[in-house]
Amino acid sequence: SRSIDLAVIPGDGIGQEVVTQGLKVLNAVLPQDVKLETKEYDLGAQRWHRTGETLPDAELEALKGHDAILLGAIGDPSVPSGVLERGLLLKLRFAFDHYVNLRPSKLFPNTASPLAGRPEIDFVVVREGTEGPYTGNGGSLRTGTEHEVATEVSVNTAYGVERVVRDAFARAAGRPRKKLTLVHKNNVLVHAGHLWKNIFDKVAAEYPEVATDYLHVDAATIFFVTQPERFDVIVTDNLFGDILTDLAAAVTGGIGLAASGNINPTGAFPSMFEPVHGTAPDIAGQGKADPTATVLSVALLLRHLGYEAEAVRIEEAVSADLAEREGQAARSTDEIGDALAVRVAS
Amino acid sequence: SRSIDLAVIPGDGIGQEVVTQGLKVLNAVLPQDVKLETKEYDLGAQRWHRTGETLPDAELEALKGHDAILLGAIGDPSVPSGVLERGLLLKLRFAFDHYVNLRPSKLFPNTASPLAGRPEIDFVVVREGTEGPYTGNGGSLRTGTEHEVATEVSVNTAYGVERVVRDAFARAAGRPRKKLTLVHKNNVLVHAGHLWKNIFDKVAAEYPEVATDYLHVDAATIFFVTQPERFDVIVTDNLFGDILTDLAAAVTGGIGLAASGNINPTGAFPSMFEPVHGTAPDIAGQGKADPTATVLSVALLLRHLGYEAEAVRIEEAVSADLAEREGQAARSTDEIGDALAVRVAS
Ligand SMILES: CC(C)[C@H](C(=O)O)[C@@H](O)C(=O)O
Ligand SMILES: CC(C)[C@H](C(=O)O)[C@@H](O)C(=O)O
Repeated sequence: SRSIDLAVIPGDGIGQEVVTQGLKVLNAVLPQDVKLETKEYDLGAQRWHRTGETLPDAELEALKGHDAILLGAIGDPSVPSGVLERGLLLKLRFAFDHYVNLRPSKLFPNTASPLAGRPEIDFVVVREGTEGPYTGNGGSLRTGTEHEVATEVSVNTAYGVERVVRDAFARAAGRPRKKLTLVHKNNVLVHAGHLWKNIFDKVAAEYPEVATDYLHVDAATIFFVTQPERFDVIVTDNLFGDILTDLAAAVTGGIGLAASGNINPTGAFPSMFEPVHGTAPDIAGQGKADPTATVLSVALLLRHLGYEAEAVRIEEAVSADLAEREGQAARSTDEIGDALAVRVAS
Repeated sequence: SRSIDLAVIPGDGIGQEVVTQGLKVLNAVLPQDVKLETKEYDLGAQRWHRTGETLPDAELEALKGHDAILLGAIGDPSVPSGVLERGLLLKLRFAFDHYVNLRPSKLFPNTASPLAGRPEIDFVVVREGTEGPYTGNGGSLRTGTEHEVATEVSVNTAYGVERVVRDAFARAAGRPRKKLTLVHKNNVLVHAGHLWKNIFDKVAAEYPEVATDYLHVDAATIFFVTQPERFDVIVTDNLFGDILTDLAAAVTGGIGLAASGNINPTGAFPSMFEPVHGTAPDIAGQGKADPTATVLSVALLLRHLGYEAEAVRIEEAVSADLAEREGQAARSTDEIGDALAVRVAS
């Protein structure tokens, strides 16, 4: 019989609330014969305040044993900036070699998009997840003095770029429009830019059926606002992907709907699924958070584990739920979770 | 008697067309007693194809002698990416120590903004212009092989950050809303991020009347779309500023209206004014380019040289021109320039 062994990291702020709903919908959508086991990990701001730990080796080791990880959100204003991001979230992405950071963007009905009424928007950003300016390379000299010099080094390897570019081409080839756009800034970041462009062009030759395109990151932001329907699959570096996917969320349904997967396509390590939004401390604990992004992340998780039909059921439920949202009173986190659980079960 | 000695670099694509209109409006707005001298420099793609030169020392030296520089746009698909950007445009910004890259954003009437109908949008981005990932530091190893490693180094100094942060605080203090937002990514780029944040906080103590705020760059893109009216002055790093100002243009009037100044506030070197848009080779030579961004850059140039009243006259003319645009047939580059010249002269 089939089973899913899931690690759950609720994290901070609204993380716990949205993860609860994600699990509710997961339970509702899974066929009877699939056994779901979950284990919760207490990681995040509270743990750090209590023990000073972000992600101890023993827990990193234990996490490795699961089929996948569901993460809520990490971070709190009470923790110095970077401590949890680098010590926990990015540590997981790097330790588990999550080189494909997958972020779909879709314009759902009745959302807060300033672009409502536009033609269909449905693209996916394949963000590199283990290189670029996220490697932690760099440092500072004469720190805190008027002579300080601080550097950040973006590291890009042929190995790292090629594997994510290949993944993006394969995804593009599998979609109806078969279009892939490389986003970089190769007129300024010439070394990294040329590496990306050369590898992109090389792999493109193996995919004659995929139409390709290149945009500088600054120009890409303009098209996200004025013509988002031109995009199908986008492949880009870690930092540009970070920026573009928040913007993508803003122009489609809002950050409350943006899902993501930190994927290791080889299966060597568990992949991790999380909403793109943060911990939203201002509304935490009030039942106001929209769990939809987490529920959509659960769909990505299911697809990754081979439960395609269940993933589609969740995505259709979200579409239907949003379509009926018009004119409705604001619903609580729990009510949205319940509504989606009912839809996927039926 | 007063005089302005102006260097003009029309550049490539639509550069020549828009610069012609910028000069037309400049001539029309200047009082009779101000003598305007202009000298055109043949720099850009054509020059490079002809001679292989981007910016020879003799011309760099000659440019130094002018009061200011008006630049159209640089770049052409026929030139390898980076050659003209690094060899000409960025070379000028670095050689003339243009550490304040000033980019105002205003929602004008009757523009193509997807946010039309929103409350007033009127902010200015102070983009650092001489450091960050734009320094050209970095390189590549085993280039072109499967073992290639390419790096880009973002260099940030206390000296460089403090002077631009001070400029931004002074600007914020001089505006009615007195608000300054620092944009960075200090939860990931911790070294550079801490340098920026520490200096920002230190200078903030000298400006108790300025309200301050910090946003990660990814979150900032969301607010640009959903709540741009929250911004007054933004100070940020070279690359984030590049990305944010294209996005700002997209959510306000479109890139056809975005002006910029590459400013050396000490006066040691001439400052340079240019539209944010590129060379638009697809419409070059057809009289279709909107010269408004160049005309607004001329306003920034005049303000920088102390002609405040004339700068305001241009900005008011642009506002009035756009206000009357509604329902009008599309006008040529020349017609828009003529209309603005007539307005500023009267
Ligand atoms: C919290 C932060 C480290 C993270 C990132 O920059 O990747 C977040 O913005 C995201 O997009 O998942
Ligand atoms: C052309 C390019 C080098 C330049 C930059 O990146 O600064 C442009 O995008 C700009 O914003 O002026």
